[in-house]
Amino acid sequence: MKKSSLIIGRQTLIEALRSGRAVDKILFQRNVTGDTIEEIRQLAREHAVPIQMVPPEKLSSLTKANHQGVVAFAGLVQYLDLQQVIDHVVAAGGIPLFIMLDGVTDVRNIGAIARSAVCCGAQALIIPDKGVGALNEEAMKSSAGALEIIHVCRVNSLLKAVDSLHLNGIKVFTSETGAQKKVFELELSEPCCIVMGSEDKGVQPYMSKAADEHFIIPMAAGFDSFNVSVAAGIILYEAMKSRLS
Amino acid sequence: MKKSSLIIGRQTLIEALRSGRAVDKILFQRNVTGDTIEEIRQLAREHAVPIQMVPPEKLSSLTKANHQGVVAFAGLVQYLDLQQVIDHVVAAGGIPLFIMLDGVTDVRNIGAIARSAVCCGAQALIIPDKGVGALNEEAMKSSAGALEIIHVCRVNSLLKAVDSLHLNGIKVFTSETGAQKKVFELELSEPCCIVMGSEDKGVQPYMSKAADEHFIIPMAAGFDSFNVSVAAGIILYEAMKSRLS
Repeated sequence: MKKSSLIIGRQTLIEALRSGRAVDKILFQRNVTGDTIEEIRQLAREHAVPIQMVPPEKLSSLTKANHQGVVAFAGLVQYLDLQQVIDHVVAAGGIPLFIMLDGVTDVRNIGAIARSAVCCGAQALIIPDKGVGALNEEAMKSSAGALEIIHVCRVNSLLKAVDSLHLNGIKVFTSETGAQKKVFELELSEPCCIVMGSEDKGVQPYMSKAADEHFIIPMAAGFDSFNVSVAAGIILYEAMKSRLS
Repeated sequence: MKKSSLIIGRQTLIEALRSGRAVDKILFQRNVTGDTIEEIRQLAREHAVPIQMVPPEKLSSLTKANHQGVVAFAGLVQYLDLQQVIDHVVAAGGIPLFIMLDGVTDVRNIGAIARSAVCCGAQALIIPDKGVGALNEEAMKSSAGALEIIHVCRVNSLLKAVDSLHLNGIKVFTSETGAQKKVFELELSEPCCIVMGSEDKGVQPYMSKAADEHFIIPMAAGFDSFNVSVAAGIILYEAMKSRLS
């Protein structure tokens, strides 16, 4: 199991970001300034890395080294560019089957979803830079290695990611209570991306609006809903089945 | 959320067991003897309640009351007799769809499986008295209330339970790596019970031998397997689908 590690100091972080190394989060000491800080901000934006402002005590508690007001957490997962992943999948003769997380917070659910995705032949997992659980050690463990296999794209706007998917002919389907269409009525053998909403609220309204189709998993009367990772597993399984036949 | 509570002392426990109250586990102080102890042993056998021998310090750490060498954990779930559940389901015009856990240890997986079971119209969850995770508060939480809805049968022999199922015309299906049949080729609209094996080893050999059919969930090449609760969800979903159509 890979362990998360720290990236300490301004220049080290700039080099890590420039080289494309995965960075999960950057902590800036409150009121930190300077040209290098601006450069880090710019690189963080480009790579969809969230920045958090913290008191100096927080940084000192993480490291005794001279951190220059900047500490970052190296990612366990290598993040890839969505367009590059699409190009790669299509070039290899694959039909894109992606899964997007719009607010799933439980890291074990995220791990289980990645595992189902790989089992079902999905090629990419798209996550926002904020609002989903971290791809940390527990997520890695729950994924049984799947997070090291699947392409992970972290984006700073899910809506822009949907635009990219649409431009590449990939339909976007959201699972939503009250939808008319059943999961097995979707065209899952076509290039598509399934969006899974948060455990409690489902997909966000703007995502629902941007999606091409809304669907439900039919259920026996009188009970709420599947666990989000089970729901994702069922949808991915249906997609795999329609691609096998 | 219901909390687990203690049953303290010999007569209290005898009355609890006689009245059919759910008891998860009985702790006997090492070397405890007497007629009432024998009676408790007998009742525990009848109700498939596991007994564990512990040092006196263990009991004293649980309660300051005069425990007479006996402390038990009251169950959060009401356990029902398998034959009574079968009779009840059939009398109500239902086609039995049961799920049996042969060694699932993670309580969150158990909760998620119960949740999928209720979502898909399964009527009963069959568990052994040893070797699966406890139906504790975390399992209850993960089940989102499903463990309070589904009939739970705790049995002291899964093999005897399989005999009872067979005598009632209920087929037993096990999910196993290497099986030829695919889950969607099973006769899931007929009365059946799905057996889910442990997270690491799958179903036990004796269970595999007793089962009527073995099946797999097809998967994209080169990856191990689904999380057990996701696999259960997919199978139950297939059963529900075949019963809806």
